[in-house]
Amino acid sequence: MRIAVDVMGGDHGCETVIDGVKQALQANFGLTEVYLVGDRERIDAHLAQSRFHDKRLRTVHASEVLAMEDKPVEGLRRKKDCSVLRAVDLVKEGRAEALISPGNTGGLVAAATIRLRKLPGVDRVGIATVIPAQDNEFVLLDSGASVECRPMHLVHYAIMGSVYAREILGCKRPRVGILSNGTEDNKGNELTLEAFKLCKQIDLHFIGNVEGYDLFHNRVDVAVCDGFVGNIVLKTIESLAQGLVDWLKKELSKNPRRMLGALLAKNALRTIKRRMDPDAYGGAPLLGLNGNVMKAHGSSRDRAVMNAMRLSTQAVQNQINQIICQEIHRANDRLSAASNSPAAAATPA
Amino acid sequence: MRIAVDVMGGDHGCETVIDGVKQALQANFGLTEVYLVGDRERIDAHLAQSRFHDKRLRTVHASEVLAMEDKPVEGLRRKKDCSVLRAVDLVKEGRAEALISPGNTGGLVAAATIRLRKLPGVDRVGIATVIPAQDNEFVLLDSGASVECRPMHLVHYAIMGSVYAREILGCKRPRVGILSNGTEDNKGNELTLEAFKLCKQIDLHFIGNVEGYDLFHNRVDVAVCDGFVGNIVLKTIESLAQGLVDWLKKELSKNPRRMLGALLAKNALRTIKRRMDPDAYGGAPLLGLNGNVMKAHGSSRDRAVMNAMRLSTQAVQNQINQIICQEIHRANDRLSAASNSPAAAATPA
Repeated sequence: MRIAVDVMGGDHGCETVIDGVKQALQANFGLTEVYLVGDRERIDAHLAQSRFHDKRLRTVHASEVLAMEDKPVEGLRRKKDCSVLRAVDLVKEGRAEALISPGNTGGLVAAATIRLRKLPGVDRVGIATVIPAQDNEFVLLDSGASVECRPMHLVHYAIMGSVYAREILGCKRPRVGILSNGTEDNKGNELTLEAFKLCKQIDLHFIGNVEGYDLFHNRVDVAVCDGFVGNIVLKTIESLAQGLVDWLKKELSKNPRRMLGALLAKNALRTIKRRMDPDAYGGAPLLGLNGNVMKAHGSSRDRAVMNAMRLSTQAVQNQINQIICQEIHRANDRLSAASNSPAAAATPA
Repeated sequence: MRIAVDVMGGDHGCETVIDGVKQALQANFGLTEVYLVGDRERIDAHLAQSRFHDKRLRTVHASEVLAMEDKPVEGLRRKKDCSVLRAVDLVKEGRAEALISPGNTGGLVAAATIRLRKLPGVDRVGIATVIPAQDNEFVLLDSGASVECRPMHLVHYAIMGSVYAREILGCKRPRVGILSNGTEDNKGNELTLEAFKLCKQIDLHFIGNVEGYDLFHNRVDVAVCDGFVGNIVLKTIESLAQGLVDWLKKELSKNPRRMLGALLAKNALRTIKRRMDPDAYGGAPLLGLNGNVMKAHGSSRDRAVMNAMRLSTQAVQNQINQIICQEIHRANDRLSAASNSPAAAATPA
C-alpha cells in the first residue's frame, strides 16, 4: 500500500502530521511506501530530531503551501509547486494509491478534481463526513464540496454514501435518507423533491426524507444533502457538541462538591468525549474522484492522521471506487432507461 | 391585553394548555381577556375539574382540530370549524391582540397568512426561534415557514429578526448574520450571496456570513436562512442536545460510582438543562404577519404555554409589528432607490 501525505497546511505544523504517519507505519496497515510531501528541510529536520527512520518513507519536496485563507482555484494557479498539487500528482502518476491532506478543503477538492478527474458517470465530488452518535454513526454528504447541486448530484451522493457506509463502516444495509424539513414524502425544496423521486427508482435502501431529529436517534446511516446544507449542519453539530462540553466543564468546576462529582463520574464523560472525538475518523473522504483522496481535519493531531491513513488503506483495499463506479453506472442506466419525466433530470449538464 | 389561545392540537391535550393559561393569568402579564378556543365540552370539564374560575376567561367553541398529520391548506379547507381558524379569526376581528397555538405549524402559518395577511411590504412570514447557548441566545429565522426563498425574503428576515432580538430579547444592537458555508464574503449559494449584497445596503448591524461554528460561540444574535435550512438546523440542534443528555444519563447510571458523581454534580447538569429547555421560550413568533401570532411547541407543557403568553404580551406591548413595518419600509425604499442591479431583486413576485 502506497500513500501520499501532504504534511503541510494543517493547523499544528508538519511535525504533528509526520508523527501521525509514524504511528501508522508502526501499526502497519499494509503500508509499503509513504510519501511525505512538503518542505523537505522541515520534514528531514523533524525526522532527524525524532530519530525516526523507516525505509518505507519517501520525501517529496514542495516549495509552497496552499494556506487555509487562500482562495482555492486562484491559489492553485499562483502556487504551482504547492504540496497539495505535488501530492495529487503522485496519485495521478500511480506512484501512490491514496492521498491524505489536512490543508485547505476547497483547494484539495479543486486540485483533486482538476488533476485526477471524476469517476466516469459522476458529476460532482462529495465530502462524506462520518458523525458518531450514541448507538450508531451516520455519513453526512455532501458536507461541503458542492454548494449548488442538481437532483442527480444528490442521487450520486446517496449511492456513494451507501457504498462507503457498507464497505468501510461495515453497515450491512445502510439506510439512506434525504435530509429535509420533515419526513413526509412531500416535504422538501425543489432540489430534494426531485432527488427523492429519482432515488425511489434506483437500487438503494432508500428510506425517504429524514429530518434533523433523526440524525442522533439511529434512524439513518447516510444523510444526503447539498454541500451548503451539509456544511452548515456539520459545523452546527461540532459547535454545539463543543459548546456543551465546555459549558459542562465550566459548571462542573464551580464548587468542590461538583468537582468531586465530576471526578467520580469522569469515565462517563470520557466515554462520550472519546466517541464524539473527530480524531477517531481522522478525516473525510472525497467521494466521486478517480483516486482515493482523504481530507484530514485541519486541526488533525497525530492520532487523527493515523486514523485517516487507516481508513485510506481500507478504501484502497476494498476498491470502493470500482464499486461506486459500478453502482453509479447501474443507477444512471436505470434512470436513463425510464422514459418518464424524472429521467430527464438524469441528463448531466 | 386580550389573547386567544388555541388549546387544541398540542401533544399533551387541551388540559395542559389550559393549565399554562392558568399560570399566565396568575402571573398576570397585564392580561384582561383570554379566549380558550377549542372543544367547549372538554374545556369546561377541565375548568370545572381543576376548579379554575377566572372572569378574564372566555371559551370559544370549535368543533374540529387540525391534526399534526393534516396537510395544512387541504386540512384548513376541509375543517372549516377548526380551532386554529377560530382563533385566528378572533385576532382578525380585533377581539384578541395576539394568538398562541401549539398545533400543526404549517396549518398555523397558512391560516394566519390567509386570514390576517402579511404586513405591508413583507413578502414572506418567518418563524423566529430563540435558541439558548452558554453565554447568549440567538434567533434563528426562518426556522420552517418558507422552504423556498428569494434574496429579498432573507433581507426581511434579517430586519424582522433584528427587531425581535432588540425589542423582545433586549439585545441592544443585534449582530445579524446570514447562515452560510463559511464566513468569507464570497461563501454561500446563489440565494445567500444575493441577500448578502442587499443586507449590506440597508440600515442593519449586518456582520456578514456566519457559519455553524459561530452559533454556539456567541458570535451572532440573529442567524438568517431560508426555512428549509433553518428547519434542518433547528431540529439537528434539538436532536443532538437531547441525544447528548440521554447519553449522559445512561453513562452516569452505569455503576454506583458514577451515580454518586452524578448526584454530587447534579446542579451543574440541571443548570444546563434548564437553560437549554425549550419551554423557557415556549414557542416561536411568526414574524411578518398583520397580527401577533406565536407557535407554541407541539410538546408544550404548561410552563411553555405560560412563557409563550408572556412573550406574546411583550410583542403586543412593544408594538413590534409597527416597528417591523417601519424598518421594512425604510429598507425597501432604500433598495428601490438604489438603481443598481440588486434593487431588481427587491421587486416582489
